[in-house]
Amino acid sequence: MLRELEKLRITEVTASDVRFPTSRDQSGSDAMNPSPDYSAAYATLHTERPELSGHGFTFTIGRGNELCTAAIRSLAPLLVGKDLRELVADLGGFWRSLAGDSQLRWLGPEKGVIHLATAAVVNALWDLYAKAQGLPLWKLLAELSPEAVVAAVDFRYLGDALTREEALELLRRSRAGREERERHLLAEGYPAYNTSVGWSGYSDDQVRQLTRQALREGWGAFKLKVGRSLEEDRRRAALLRGEIGDAPLMFDANQVWEVDEAIAYVRALADFQPLWIEEPTSPDDILGHRKIAEAVRPIGVASGEHVHNRVMFKQFFEAGALDFCQLDPARLGGVNEALAVLLMAAKFGVPVCPHAGGVGLCEYVQHLSMFDYLAVSGSLEGRRVEYVGHLHQHFLDPVVIRRGCYQPPSRPGFSSEMRPESLSSYAFPDGAAWQGKPPA
Amino acid sequence: MLRELEKLRITEVTASDVRFPTSRDQSGSDAMNPSPDYSAAYATLHTERPELSGHGFTFTIGRGNELCTAAIRSLAPLLVGKDLRELVADLGGFWRSLAGDSQLRWLGPEKGVIHLATAAVVNALWDLYAKAQGLPLWKLLAELSPEAVVAAVDFRYLGDALTREEALELLRRSRAGREERERHLLAEGYPAYNTSVGWSGYSDDQVRQLTRQALREGWGAFKLKVGRSLEEDRRRAALLRGEIGDAPLMFDANQVWEVDEAIAYVRALADFQPLWIEEPTSPDDILGHRKIAEAVRPIGVASGEHVHNRVMFKQFFEAGALDFCQLDPARLGGVNEALAVLLMAAKFGVPVCPHAGGVGLCEYVQHLSMFDYLAVSGSLEGRRVEYVGHLHQHFLDPVVIRRGCYQPPSRPGFSSEMRPESLSSYAFPDGAAWQGKPPA
Repeated sequence: MLRELEKLRITEVTASDVRFPTSRDQSGSDAMNPSPDYSAAYATLHTERPELSGHGFTFTIGRGNELCTAAIRSLAPLLVGKDLRELVADLGGFWRSLAGDSQLRWLGPEKGVIHLATAAVVNALWDLYAKAQGLPLWKLLAELSPEAVVAAVDFRYLGDALTREEALELLRRSRAGREERERHLLAEGYPAYNTSVGWSGYSDDQVRQLTRQALREGWGAFKLKVGRSLEEDRRRAALLRGEIGDAPLMFDANQVWEVDEAIAYVRALADFQPLWIEEPTSPDDILGHRKIAEAVRPIGVASGEHVHNRVMFKQFFEAGALDFCQLDPARLGGVNEALAVLLMAAKFGVPVCPHAGGVGLCEYVQHLSMFDYLAVSGSLEGRRVEYVGHLHQHFLDPVVIRRGCYQPPSRPGFSSEMRPESLSSYAFPDGAAWQGKPPA
Repeated sequence: MLRELEKLRITEVTASDVRFPTSRDQSGSDAMNPSPDYSAAYATLHTERPELSGHGFTFTIGRGNELCTAAIRSLAPLLVGKDLRELVADLGGFWRSLAGDSQLRWLGPEKGVIHLATAAVVNALWDLYAKAQGLPLWKLLAELSPEAVVAAVDFRYLGDALTREEALELLRRSRAGREERERHLLAEGYPAYNTSVGWSGYSDDQVRQLTRQALREGWGAFKLKVGRSLEEDRRRAALLRGEIGDAPLMFDANQVWEVDEAIAYVRALADFQPLWIEEPTSPDDILGHRKIAEAVRPIGVASGEHVHNRVMFKQFFEAGALDFCQLDPARLGGVNEALAVLLMAAKFGVPVCPHAGGVGLCEYVQHLSMFDYLAVSGSLEGRRVEYVGHLHQHFLDPVVIRRGCYQPPSRPGFSSEMRPESLSSYAFPDGAAWQGKPPA
């Protein structure tokens, strides 16, 4: 049951540019992104009560993080002085007031830097809301009535694919069996797959050792970065397939191919029986993904970490261009828009396997997938949350993995609050971590 | 004939936040953008020769312009120290070095604030190149060999729709008759249509008077903003149709409708025989535009001012979702990407009627359409460049309109250089224009 909230004014919004020098050890490297410095543009919503604040962020890979940080400051006037109680009474209106600001909207609309910053601010508000309710976000979302969930969604431009009424009906139908699913979730956790074993920059020995260690820890599904050269990819895929036996194996090309090239390349990797090929080409190319999906079946096509809004996902679903939806609540405009995508994915029968890794994305997406299981799709079939083993130590409520499954967070909020000492040590460019060695 | 360029180092890139308080008189108002302050994030490439600098900008409508200005500064290190001669020897490589920077790319890819800033910087380079050649940009582009044009284009992700070889073939074919077309262009100018008569915020009397004045000046095609209410739109359309007789009339909805709503609404305006309906729904909704285009024929569907890159245009063309392509070289990544879209439009037989207005967009797009006529499509059929009568006085080489046609610029460059006194008076927030009255 949800509490009646008290009046709680947002007094200030601060923004921090936080960067981790991950390019130094090649973690996070892939065919498109050879040398990322994993970064967060971090928003804090301060309130009248010093002990209660909301924390959210978007993720970038280094240079340009200053622009997302500045964009949080550009959005701040739309929040300062507002009352949490009134904002949560109209979460859809709150979202539209940010994404639809009549001048800022021109910078997207609903894409790029301004949308990334919208994610940070929107997610900070959900963190604040969940803390004010004393619940982890997944539980708060599951406690919301179908009407309240739908009220948080902006259905603009979705009318020809999903109406408010269809979404309500879908949420009402999935109430059946929820208690049973919650018991299962609390006992077993939510299934995950492991991306930490197969970065492009890792040597064969590193891949082998990391995979063996992951198998010992109970992991049962793995992802390999591909797309630098077919020969190399086949060698690495054989290595990984040899280590993991029949376990699900995913390939991720990080957008490096033309459409026709993707089809030929994926066919040449088909004997390793990948579950999916991820980001085979430009993330904007809906029709290209459809061509690839039709050509490489039964291998699935996955994308989403760069799919920038619900209108793009609508078309991916309508076109039958995606077999796995990898939504990212730091790329979409935060929780509100992620809800829209979860609802569409459920309607179109596409499993959601969120994009994670980065900085704090695992912390974010576990909440959305657990909510999806309890209240939207009601299913774990074909669903796995990405897991990457980096940077969790910088969060107050880091993810907990057991036997390859995310364990439901119990601490109130969105698990999105970073440790104050991390915020200061990794502040760019003045934090201690950046003082010894300037970024490339 | 083009000159051999001398070595010319770019010594500094400066960025200016320039805003015009257009919301005070409602010029530029429409159903989605009720109160814009037309703005430019302005880039200057300074060189070793003080008399030779490159000027480019992107356009926004007010708040958030500071982010595009900051993004120009984030891109600056990719240009400073480079030699113009080497950059123009590999214009495609230059473009990819900006749009494909391995860390900045995450902020898009190729969309939003970072892509808007890319447009400013790329266009500034073309301005510099044209000045160094002593030619207006349209003439420089027409003087480039087919091989040189194609070398400036990034064909990445276009392979399934347009190859480099097809583009070359297309450019070679359109060499026939070019001299004749150039004579025609110099004598008559390039056809335009007038948007200045029908802003949403204008009264019926204003619309009537502006239309009569435009007719007296020789204008023969007009655009009306629609989408606030059907009753009001029918009244204003009847008024305008009554004034202009059988002249082409275009409607612009600025993204306000759902797909099904657009179809019904446009049908209810069909008796005014509009040539096109512009931006009927979300600019990201390729499949939605196709549904609308199929349903409202023979009324055409137009879009482009928010279509953010060549991959999106590729799909619009492939899907048959656009009857008129309104590319915008301040939204796309500047001239290089506009060339890609001109080539695809020519292949798919879609007339290009560029988006203009804003700040300096008329100055920009005239060059591209004139080049298209001379060297790409070779046709004026169905083609008109948008014209809006604002803010030209702030440019050193403002557009010249005669009898409703753009007259080819003769001054070297991209017509993109603003007067120094305008840059300083309208600097935000410290310029004189902003000191009396702070922005809303």
